Amino acid sequence: MFRILLLGAGRSASSLIQYLLLHAPTEGWYLTVADVQAAHLAPVLAAHSEYARAVPFDVHDEARLEELVPQADIVISMLPALFHGAVARACVRHRRHLATASYVSEEIQALDAEAREVGITILMECGLDPGLDHMSAMQVLSAIRARGGQLMSFKSYCGGLLAPEAEADNPWKYKFTWNPRNVVLAGQSTAKFLENGHLRFIPYQHLFNRTETISVPGFGEFEGYANRDSLSYRAPYGLEHIPTMLRGTLRRPGYCAAWHALVRLGLTDDAVHLTNPATLPWRELVEAYLPTGPGDTAARVAEYLGLEPQGAVLQHLAWLELFTARPVGLANATPAQLLEKLLTEKWALHPQDRDMIVMQHQFEYELGGQLYGHTSSLVVLGDDAVHTAMAKTVGLPVGMAVRRLAQGKLAQRGIVIPTQAELYEPILAELEQDHGIRFVEEEHPLPTARRPVGSLSRYNAR
Amino acid sequence: MFRILLLGAGRSASSLIQYLLLHAPTEGWYLTVADVQAAHLAPVLAAHSEYARAVPFDVHDEARLEELVPQADIVISMLPALFHGAVARACVRHRRHLATASYVSEEIQALDAEAREVGITILMECGLDPGLDHMSAMQVLSAIRARGGQLMSFKSYCGGLLAPEAEADNPWKYKFTWNPRNVVLAGQSTAKFLENGHLRFIPYQHLFNRTETISVPGFGEFEGYANRDSLSYRAPYGLEHIPTMLRGTLRRPGYCAAWHALVRLGLTDDAVHLTNPATLPWRELVEAYLPTGPGDTAARVAEYLGLEPQGAVLQHLAWLELFTARPVGLANATPAQLLEKLLTEKWALHPQDRDMIVMQHQFEYELGGQLYGHTSSLVVLGDDAVHTAMAKTVGLPVGMAVRRLAQGKLAQRGIVIPTQAELYEPILAELEQDHGIRFVEEEHPLPTARRPVGSLSRYNAR
Repeated sequence: MFRILLLGAGRSASSLIQYLLLHAPTEGWYLTVADVQAAHLAPVLAAHSEYARAVPFDVHDEARLEELVPQADIVISMLPALFHGAVARACVRHRRHLATASYVSEEIQALDAEAREVGITILMECGLDPGLDHMSAMQVLSAIRARGGQLMSFKSYCGGLLAPEAEADNPWKYKFTWNPRNVVLAGQSTAKFLENGHLRFIPYQHLFNRTETISVPGFGEFEGYANRDSLSYRAPYGLEHIPTMLRGTLRRPGYCAAWHALVRLGLTDDAVHLTNPATLPWRELVEAYLPTGPGDTAARVAEYLGLEPQGAVLQHLAWLELFTARPVGLANATPAQLLEKLLTEKWALHPQDRDMIVMQHQFEYELGGQLYGHTSSLVVLGDDAVHTAMAKTVGLPVGMAVRRLAQGKLAQRGIVIPTQAELYEPILAELEQDHGIRFVEEEHPLPTARRPVGSLSRYNAR
Repeated sequence: MFRILLLGAGRSASSLIQYLLLHAPTEGWYLTVADVQAAHLAPVLAAHSEYARAVPFDVHDEARLEELVPQADIVISMLPALFHGAVARACVRHRRHLATASYVSEEIQALDAEAREVGITILMECGLDPGLDHMSAMQVLSAIRARGGQLMSFKSYCGGLLAPEAEADNPWKYKFTWNPRNVVLAGQSTAKFLENGHLRFIPYQHLFNRTETISVPGFGEFEGYANRDSLSYRAPYGLEHIPTMLRGTLRRPGYCAAWHALVRLGLTDDAVHLTNPATLPWRELVEAYLPTGPGDTAARVAEYLGLEPQGAVLQHLAWLELFTARPVGLANATPAQLLEKLLTEKWALHPQDRDMIVMQHQFEYELGGQLYGHTSSLVVLGDDAVHTAMAKTVGLPVGMAVRRLAQGKLAQRGIVIPTQAELYEPILAELEQDHGIRFVEEEHPLPTARRPVGSLSRYNAR
């Protein structure tokens, strides 16, 4: 019997639990799901009581962690990333494998030598982004390299969005399918990437105004804005000398320009506490950011930011009720906290809303004097409010990676991310065969005279 | 004998040391100057060896602090503000008075009850700004109140600038007479103030574009931008119900618009480390912030920011050599670190440069149905490179406050800032009589129909 301990059974763990329960009987697994709301899980696991149980677990209780970890052969952590350091140290202490869907932090990286020494594998970045992005990109990169192609440009975009039918009642075409605070604070550090061999930086105050348009067959257009650090992926992808490299986040057209207006007003700032009463109307909060002048709030915002008074951006802002007497609802808060509170109400998923994951890689490479473009696109729709596209694409790759490790098919110890074929090939195949999760590949020659040129150049200098 | 321990004898302590040495014989003081460069001070103090000595002191050596504090009756700290918590705790432990020119931090505020209990006075905010600003404002406020006037508006500005003859070779009309890092990072938190009874916020991305013009008789015009928190001074000044209250910083016209361009480019960001070599030319760093396009760097900056290619802002930037092959000089630094390094060279004071302190308070009050405007203006010029205007205006008020305390003329214990007449009246009188440091007062009726209106409305929505 191979004992699996899953820490954290929140929203994004539903498909992972389903996957683990499905394979437990045939793989000989015994699953312990440890969560602060263990009672809620009991009915779900009741039908599987021979090989699964739920136990209560509070993430702040390190003694409980010390008790649970030694009882497992592998630990999967779906806890918020900030807890992974403590979990990983417990795994090293007790010589248990670990798998997560989170980035390799400095805290985790520091455990690499020790993990090798005690003979455990710490599987990181095995979810969607990071995770599926590495796997699918490496598969294409590896095929291009095998044919002798030289990579000139690699751009990769991902977004957690809404299924088209769920976008209709919302001009932002966005609702929260992920941590609201992370969405509100997204991009506050300068984005770093490479363009034609030159370092490129986009500070926060321009980030949402320097977007690229991405087309996905059958699903229309999206906007991509640059992620914080695209440079650190050169080494893991073996692209140390690539001239152009960019990772970005996708939104539907219109979102970025409207968000840019919120940034410019100052409403995404999380540093200043506003000395405000909870009863402060949103209109007065917005007024407080405007210079004195005549006219109603919306018109003055348009004038201040140099926007069309009847244009799309102002409509996005008005839909949020920023120009109404609606109270902000929190006293002495930061603007970002007030905005998060408002958006959590405005951008709440309805029970019938399905979400949608979109990922696209864009490669450019030279082969035999010819430049080629290759695009890999993935769209995953949620089944329902439980098995969301986010839960499937985050949870299934983790489950499949754990399965490989449990089967003894992953020999590497220490910190591992899924950039190697022995991991990504079987996982990508299983995702396609059993779950219909597959990338659409397109390839076409590009004009030879053309040098790869970055296109985050659609900007408006406001 | 009254023993005074001065911690820190840096640039801004020169006039304070001179003041303490001048009065030591008549006041019966014995002065110990503790500084990391004690050897440099020895010749200065040699002529005063009966009542003064220099001792070595490293600010990080807490044991040494424990040794020095009990040997004094009062400690004056001219160390960087971050060390004042440790110094104040030592003073409480050993029941010694303390005086500084720094803000009351939360760390200091927490010592108030204990300081009262052990019977010591912690004199804070006794320099220029904070310090002289409180003293001069309270003197005028108190006179207006005594006549029955009701305060409608109070704005207060201060700047550490250059004497007019030292401005000539520099379009910014600015050089460092104070901590360069603080100047580069100034304003990065949202400014909060009051305007006609309404809260007003200016986030960093607009701060240097929303300035007021200030005139000082005989010295021309200045620009004021809003300080971080103007609200917290309502209570100490007894202005809880004033409709308009603003504190700001002064620069010469042209500085703020050019600095705003640096902010918009992203060059004042201190959060991101740029993965850059030290040999990176400034021109390429600036290029890295621009979208791809044709034209030389300066022209593209002008286009990106919507500025006149031959205008004043571009001339300010060009004067800094931002568009040249000059290397940035530091590897993997933040843009703010690179900018600080460049400006430390470009804005270095020459030996013959004199500095200049400018302060102006603007009051509006109602009396007998009539609105009045009252302006208090101060200009102080440096004597030379040692007795700068900054050193005089920071150090002399500290010395004078300490003198009152040593004479037993300040009865209050716990934390004290100079907003009470028993402190500010004799200090303002001594500054005028002995040092020619005096405010010019102007008062005039304002049109009765006019309500006080804030004027941070001169803006350009870029």
